[in-house]
Amino acid sequence: MSNYQTPLRDINFALFELLDYSLHCSTIGQSALDTELANAFLVEAARFSETILAPLGPLGDRAGCQLVEGRVITPPGFKEAYQQYCAAGWPTLSRSTLYGGQGLPQSLGIVLSEILGTPNWAWGMYVGLSQGAMHTIETHGSLRQKQQYLPSLISGRWTGTMCLTEAQAGSDLGLLKTKAEACTDGSYKITGTKIFISSGDHDLAENIIHIVLARLPDAPPGTKGISLFVVPKILISESGDLLEQNNINCSAIEHKMGIHGNATCVLNFDGATGWLLGDINKGLNQMFTFMNLARIGSGLQGLAHGELGYQTARRYARERLQMRSASGPRYPEKAADPIIVHPDVRRMLLTQKVLVEGVRMLCYFSALKMDLSQNSASPDMRDSASDVAGLLTPIVKAFSTEVGFESANLALQCLGGHGYIREWGLEQNLRDCRIATLYEGTTGIQALDLLGRKIIGSGTKTLVALIDEVNEFCSDCAANEQLAPRAAQLTTLNQEWLELSLSIADKAQHNPDEIGAAAVDYLMYSGYLVLAYLWLRAEKIARTQLAGGAEDASFYTAKLASADFYFARILPRTAGLVQSIKSGADNLMSLPDESF
Amino acid sequence: MSNYQTPLRDINFALFELLDYSLHCSTIGQSALDTELANAFLVEAARFSETILAPLGPLGDRAGCQLVEGRVITPPGFKEAYQQYCAAGWPTLSRSTLYGGQGLPQSLGIVLSEILGTPNWAWGMYVGLSQGAMHTIETHGSLRQKQQYLPSLISGRWTGTMCLTEAQAGSDLGLLKTKAEACTDGSYKITGTKIFISSGDHDLAENIIHIVLARLPDAPPGTKGISLFVVPKILISESGDLLEQNNINCSAIEHKMGIHGNATCVLNFDGATGWLLGDINKGLNQMFTFMNLARIGSGLQGLAHGELGYQTARRYARERLQMRSASGPRYPEKAADPIIVHPDVRRMLLTQKVLVEGVRMLCYFSALKMDLSQNSASPDMRDSASDVAGLLTPIVKAFSTEVGFESANLALQCLGGHGYIREWGLEQNLRDCRIATLYEGTTGIQALDLLGRKIIGSGTKTLVALIDEVNEFCSDCAANEQLAPRAAQLTTLNQEWLELSLSIADKAQHNPDEIGAAAVDYLMYSGYLVLAYLWLRAEKIARTQLAGGAEDASFYTAKLASADFYFARILPRTAGLVQSIKSGADNLMSLPDESF
Repeated sequence: MSNYQTPLRDINFALFELLDYSLHCSTIGQSALDTELANAFLVEAARFSETILAPLGPLGDRAGCQLVEGRVITPPGFKEAYQQYCAAGWPTLSRSTLYGGQGLPQSLGIVLSEILGTPNWAWGMYVGLSQGAMHTIETHGSLRQKQQYLPSLISGRWTGTMCLTEAQAGSDLGLLKTKAEACTDGSYKITGTKIFISSGDHDLAENIIHIVLARLPDAPPGTKGISLFVVPKILISESGDLLEQNNINCSAIEHKMGIHGNATCVLNFDGATGWLLGDINKGLNQMFTFMNLARIGSGLQGLAHGELGYQTARRYARERLQMRSASGPRYPEKAADPIIVHPDVRRMLLTQKVLVEGVRMLCYFSALKMDLSQNSASPDMRDSASDVAGLLTPIVKAFSTEVGFESANLALQCLGGHGYIREWGLEQNLRDCRIATLYEGTTGIQALDLLGRKIIGSGTKTLVALIDEVNEFCSDCAANEQLAPRAAQLTTLNQEWLELSLSIADKAQHNPDEIGAAAVDYLMYSGYLVLAYLWLRAEKIARTQLAGGAEDASFYTAKLASADFYFARILPRTAGLVQSIKSGADNLMSLPDESF
Repeated sequence: MSNYQTPLRDINFALFELLDYSLHCSTIGQSALDTELANAFLVEAARFSETILAPLGPLGDRAGCQLVEGRVITPPGFKEAYQQYCAAGWPTLSRSTLYGGQGLPQSLGIVLSEILGTPNWAWGMYVGLSQGAMHTIETHGSLRQKQQYLPSLISGRWTGTMCLTEAQAGSDLGLLKTKAEACTDGSYKITGTKIFISSGDHDLAENIIHIVLARLPDAPPGTKGISLFVVPKILISESGDLLEQNNINCSAIEHKMGIHGNATCVLNFDGATGWLLGDINKGLNQMFTFMNLARIGSGLQGLAHGELGYQTARRYARERLQMRSASGPRYPEKAADPIIVHPDVRRMLLTQKVLVEGVRMLCYFSALKMDLSQNSASPDMRDSASDVAGLLTPIVKAFSTEVGFESANLALQCLGGHGYIREWGLEQNLRDCRIATLYEGTTGIQALDLLGRKIIGSGTKTLVALIDEVNEFCSDCAANEQLAPRAAQLTTLNQEWLELSLSIADKAQHNPDEIGAAAVDYLMYSGYLVLAYLWLRAEKIARTQLAGGAEDASFYTAKLASADFYFARILPRTAGLVQSIKSGADNLMSLPDESF
């Protein structure tokens, strides 16, 4: 794992060549962030990630977290790495300049998360969740709350968490029971047990600010009766000094399949002192305002494990000698050919390559739409970007983590039996990856959000906004004889996508189960289409660069080969998905519960 | 996991109803094995599996194996379970009556392996590999070797292993280096290091008989210079008494992703004393004579983890309350509906159900073909069954383990975050399952065997033998208006299968890489077609039973719903696979090795 190298060339391609990041930054009022400056950040983050975080990845897996007398001890080296992270100012990157942040775009923060998270996702979760808590307080906190919490969170002196799940309330937060009772001094007493709290306790920072979902005594049942509270692990004086321990107890940490370096806590709030954040009973709505960002952050995990696996599988395939190429020895001086000569090994590697690079484009593309939805000067552009960003979010979260898992699994497969043992790190990579389709809303939940809320809920308006963009690009390609056939294919698929959506919406009017019956296949189908669009854009750039005599021709030639592979061997998966979607709900719903 | 229940009803369906096992047994000269007797074996095996082996499954994972002073200590309880297994006579079931076996069909041994392996695959591997070693000695040993080794192996007093892999020789056994030097007394000195030796050392039995691949000093290079040797851990006197330790040292056990209860050993043979088994330089050919059986045995692992995961996921989906059915509350008296009401949860469960039950039919179907290929009275039937069994073997091994992994993964997904933690056993199930597509020949190796050797190597003769059988069944269905549409669809797909095979064979004449380029997609395609055939046969039986007023109508109705689901949502995957296969080798081979 210590061989990990940040794929800066490909990050550069996606950010600066494909998405014209400098232009984007000026559109969102960040013209100071030119290519050179942005790149300087990325290079520095890569250095930190490769030298400090990567070696701790396997160590963190083996040591795991320990719960000793109610306190979590993180793996050796995690705390020191966190201190270096803070000293370098990384937590401040995308945060508000009013409280010590650098105010740079969220999209740059997304790329930073990718770079830091790839070789050591468990460590990255501590800082990622903290960003989520800061974002919540920035968006919904009172001025006083911001002044009280943000400077110490942004500097990294404290970290934050999100406390949502309870034993009986996972996907269905409407069932949550944690109580919040008002005190006379304006504070609340929070009582209840939260489970699966990532980074819920640790020894990296001197305090932890929990954002907790709870219910007031007179709140309506279900999701309309949930409020947000800020509940510090250690209480804080008016002047910001740490006082006594709050009534929060970490009673257990989970034994998980992977991400052992991150503590997944059971937290008991036993009349803990907290303060309301935002409006009463609006907790879930308030969560949704930043859910897009959090879900893109989780989608990155698919990218991270896909990339990490691919790097190792590629290296192994170049070194491991087994058998001769079917078309005759390619390296006759060696005892056998390296396995990268075998077509099936190449199929596995190329699958990883086009999914990983494709998902990178998808994550960045979505992050830029989110920037635009919030910071574009034009209200029209904000609205349209918001539609597209909302549509893309569940795809980023679920599709990226599903194909990221597929990639991580294929990477392990490339190593044969060596993939199954600890030495090469790929079994850890697969274990770590496995959580990504579960937390922050499972694939099934994301698919309902996409099809039910974003597509059908908008009367397909959001889909049309995205399809218009794709079709416009395809029209631009029509005059280019190299790109025209794929552009035409993509236009046809767009039409199929729209018709499929309308047909499900129509069927759902008679049977609401039709949405859930189609949802996951529909989400995967959508993901493959968006990736086809991005691969075609990548191909266009590569062709232009090659025609212009670009210096690193082999990089662009590889992009052409990757686009070929994507259209020939990955995009055809949509054919089976369409048939499955069209088959409708009956083949799912007819079997009685007891006959499974 | 202690809730595990052997799916005896479905095993009965596949064996006795679908495949008419009693008739089969008389065809292979085993008419004494009627339904009642066979079923008595299964019931007794189920009892042993559920009460003794199932509770040790999670315990074995946590305790793992320990290497202490060169000896492997298995998890607590493993040895006692092994003693009970031997006392009940299980190792004797399919073994030669000349040496203490019961001489029952191999197919019954396959079903036994499934039942014992499902709740505790790590334990099952000790006895499974031992059966492989016995089979090798039965087939290739001299009379003296049989007399010397078989009685103690068959009684279970000793166990056996297969020692193939070396660090530089995995898929490519031609590269193996272990030396065998002839001594004057007819024995050989074996020197070399074997890795990844499952059950290579343990404390279950008093001796271990290793079957070792090695190379004589003057042997030709590559696979044509490999011989088989029998090398006991403890040397044996003429009268069968144990003498001193042989020069074999277990220097390490691997840290693996799963199957922690089975020791994966590095074995150093340091001039160990062994004896030639069979003919000089024919070692690899001799291995192939029983490879079919070993590979069906590994294919069972996909079935095992698929079944184990499905049982847990189904139970969880019935108990876990989250949200209401989209069509209104189904269980209004509860706080929410059980998640089995949600279409996407049903999609995941049905996918598992039809893959698991489908793979069970596939494994048994293949096992019966193997019985016939060896023990049918008719030479024609032996030949034809041998063709079909040879064709099915790589499909059983690779397809079953690939879709078994998919099922185990979906089972985990059904539990959301609870699937990721240890409590429900599904993360262990996925970790244990992951090795199945790697050992005994990876999926890629199986696919080359199928397409290169079995299909193209036979000039599609073997495929035609299978297709003829399927088409004959489809013709029989043509008069039945309920079955006719699917029978027609299957006949069309059979034609596509044959044409696809011929077209690849044709392309491969010009470019040998076309075989490897198509192989894995082709294998998966073939698997889905064979499963469609078996599901249609299951549907036919279910319809007949329902029309006849069968008592357990709900069982047969579930078979109809499952067949519907399979044809509507699983079989369409072939559409994407066909496109990928037809795209040819160029999109895999054009990228230079260094551009990955």
